[in-house]
Amino acid sequence: MKKFKYYWEDFPVGAVRDFGGKTLSRDDIVRFGREYDPQPFHVDEEAAKRSVFGGLIASGWQTCALAMRMMCDAYLLDAASAGSPGVENIRWILPVHPGDTLRVRLTVLEARVLQSKPHIGLVRNKWEMFNQKDEQVMHMEGYGMFLRRDAPG
Amino acid sequence: MKKFKYYWEDFPVGAVRDFGGKTLSRDDIVRFGREYDPQPFHVDEEAAKRSVFGGLIASGWQTCALAMRMMCDAYLLDAASAGSPGVENIRWILPVHPGDTLRVRLTVLEARVLQSKPHIGLVRNKWEMFNQKDEQVMHMEGYGMFLRRDAPG
Repeated sequence: MKKFKYYWEDFPVGAVRDFGGKTLSRDDIVRFGREYDPQPFHVDEEAAKRSVFGGLIASGWQTCALAMRMMCDAYLLDAASAGSPGVENIRWILPVHPGDTLRVRLTVLEARVLQSKPHIGLVRNKWEMFNQKDEQVMHMEGYGMFLRRDAPG
Repeated sequence: MKKFKYYWEDFPVGAVRDFGGKTLSRDDIVRFGREYDPQPFHVDEEAAKRSVFGGLIASGWQTCALAMRMMCDAYLLDAASAGSPGVENIRWILPVHPGDTLRVRLTVLEARVLQSKPHIGLVRNKWEMFNQKDEQVMHMEGYGMFLRRDAPG
């Protein structure tokens, strides 16, 4: 069985990881918007100027997906991940504009072994996403499941 | 100012809307995975077979984004939307596989006018997503803001 770099034991309560630094271009925003969230302020520059946002902004689902990608690149692809049952309390605090560079600070809030599956541990993380001006643009709390390092393989 | 078909008044507590019927193909799943969530079980058929899921499944973020798209097509593009402050309690209950056809039942849980912006109303919706076997694959609760029909324009 493949050996991973990270297991449940590597996500203790209080652990903090900073990662990211990806920039969303105008094209990235419009392309995602056309496929998944074609509201005018996500796909049409001129209509966006006339909207409540005053200009083109990224779909909130795209900023969530980008945070996911940054977590994959930072450590998740090297981790014994068993997926996620869900996410809580997503808050899209400030709009994300074309050219914004985003980073994530992830803090482990809770870590426990699953009673029903003792070879798997659950982690609850706080996600804080910031732009290049260090303004917080998003908050969420997500669950992740990981195999335990000493689980029978 | 553009006149819309739907305003805040069109989303009273208890209102139910059923919509959707989109199918996620293998290509849709892999393409989203490569861009936003490249875990093996979202991008690599063979690796997915060896994973805890036993086969390729869609990223949970893609199922959320697809629900968003189905809401856009059902009514949001005809509504005086003022965006969303967030979403709560996302639960990815069952995996979504290639070829699954998904639909959404949306129920209004709460509707109130914003004290700070009395021309805007807030709606809290329960989202239930089902596959073609009528199994529930996702649950979430989302907020939406809409202009009031009689707001000064």
